[in-house]
Amino acid sequence: MNHYIALDIGGTQMRGACYPENSLSPVKVERIATRGGSTSLLERLIQLIQSIWPDQGHVGAIGAAVPGPVDPYQGVIIKAPNIPEWLEMPLSQYLEDQFHVPVHLGNDANMAAMGEWKYGAGKGHHHLVYITVSTGIGGGVILDDRLLLGVRGMGGELGHVTVVPDGALCGCGQRGHLETVAAGPGIARWTQEQLQAGAQSSLPTDHPLTAKEVSLAAQKGDSLAIAALARAGRYLGWALADYLHIFNPSVIVIGGGVSQSGALLFEPMKLALHERVMHQDYTKGLQIARAELGDDVGLMGALALAQS
Amino acid sequence: MNHYIALDIGGTQMRGACYPENSLSPVKVERIATRGGSTSLLERLIQLIQSIWPDQGHVGAIGAAVPGPVDPYQGVIIKAPNIPEWLEMPLSQYLEDQFHVPVHLGNDANMAAMGEWKYGAGKGHHHLVYITVSTGIGGGVILDDRLLLGVRGMGGELGHVTVVPDGALCGCGQRGHLETVAAGPGIARWTQEQLQAGAQSSLPTDHPLTAKEVSLAAQKGDSLAIAALARAGRYLGWALADYLHIFNPSVIVIGGGVSQSGALLFEPMKLALHERVMHQDYTKGLQIARAELGDDVGLMGALALAQS
Repeated sequence: MNHYIALDIGGTQMRGACYPENSLSPVKVERIATRGGSTSLLERLIQLIQSIWPDQGHVGAIGAAVPGPVDPYQGVIIKAPNIPEWLEMPLSQYLEDQFHVPVHLGNDANMAAMGEWKYGAGKGHHHLVYITVSTGIGGGVILDDRLLLGVRGMGGELGHVTVVPDGALCGCGQRGHLETVAAGPGIARWTQEQLQAGAQSSLPTDHPLTAKEVSLAAQKGDSLAIAALARAGRYLGWALADYLHIFNPSVIVIGGGVSQSGALLFEPMKLALHERVMHQDYTKGLQIARAELGDDVGLMGALALAQS
Repeated sequence: MNHYIALDIGGTQMRGACYPENSLSPVKVERIATRGGSTSLLERLIQLIQSIWPDQGHVGAIGAAVPGPVDPYQGVIIKAPNIPEWLEMPLSQYLEDQFHVPVHLGNDANMAAMGEWKYGAGKGHHHLVYITVSTGIGGGVILDDRLLLGVRGMGGELGHVTVVPDGALCGCGQRGHLETVAAGPGIARWTQEQLQAGAQSSLPTDHPLTAKEVSLAAQKGDSLAIAALARAGRYLGWALADYLHIFNPSVIVIGGGVSQSGALLFEPMKLALHERVMHQDYTKGLQIARAELGDDVGLMGALALAQS
């Protein structure tokens, strides 16, 4: 029987699973720390793959989700911020030499988009916009059943569009991107600024805030925290209206830690989106859904990639 | 021999041309006023097609560029601002009933993108962003040799993204879109506002300005007019940097009347783009080109569509 191997490579841990063809029930699953002992990262990854290799049948392909920009055509990790050892790393070639099966790489946000499209909240749709909001904002777009990649595979960076031309510094080095106002650190920073400017709040002033603290305070009714989530939601909604005009998808899937803030983020977001869309045909039948696959999204995307 | 018929339908005139397969030299070309006499628009269009029908051989398909949103899957003109008679008009069906060949529709900006990609400044590229700047801003995107359409064919609206959240009213009814700051009327409006606020300029104050007047004054060295074009160019450059992150194209093609302002628009635009791009890999090998096909762009795009 044919199998596919899916890998989710992170800065802290690496996960692998082996799936029989046409099945979402893996025959083997393994999870190891990315670093440890005296073995190199690549050796550890090879051991992980060996440990989940099927006892019978053969492997059709390996798919891997990688935390950072990759060249999906060459199978090269360009730069993974959490795995600095792997700069311009031709991972597909290394693994193909070792295992003699095709190896496909994708960045984690693109793989999450594929996972949600094939197996999660976007199942059955042909045009999907996925956006993940946590410490950064990542994106992935499916158009006509194909992942948007672009000439070097660097497309789909939906968090890196200018929303405040002279705004705060972004994780990418640029200024005023959506990520700076709607991701976790941006939410925390704005709240902190309001506190320092004398805003009333139950939030502590003795240490730098996190977005999680803001979210918890908002759930308990703190008005400053509620305003902070609403502001982030509004910026997200405006950007999503732009993405409706650009991509005309039938579903928007939203994942990432910040999206767990729930209605206090989602309601202002939806309101802003509907307010800003230029024609109701863009929202006719549109679904706006939360990501469904949770921690498995990278693995499921890597599986979809392996099978593609 | 097989032929293809291309139509460029505008509010003022309709053009048609009949091309032999694998040729860009039409065997027949015709141009008529969109309205006139006692015949309906549809009758006039049918007569136009009859007048360019090949004497020998058969027609493989008809492609038509239409000035407004269309449903390319159903072949329906949703709404053409300059042809209000054709609201929710199933043009493909009408023409297929009449001529018994497949008829494909596309909106004019998308068709211009296809024309420039197949026969113009974007020839040989697989990932193209086309933007046309005149009284409005339209767009079209080719990804992996396919036109971006979306679920209802309404994608690719690159002029309708928010760049000034509380900005001026856009032609689409929304606020603060790129079109409001970088298209002709936005350039004229900003210049007029500066004049009224007392800015020094050679421009007249006795009538509402046009973008063309601003452009001509800029060519002659008027500093306010130069600043107006530079401002529009800067906004365009920022938006194009966003589009590099979103689409990762290998070529950007810029068309439309405003783009004829030349270096005074293009240089600030390129500067802003390079300043705002988050990683040099996005601009490595990137071509930024002016549209090449001029008035023929609609026809050439319709031809590309007919052949697709």
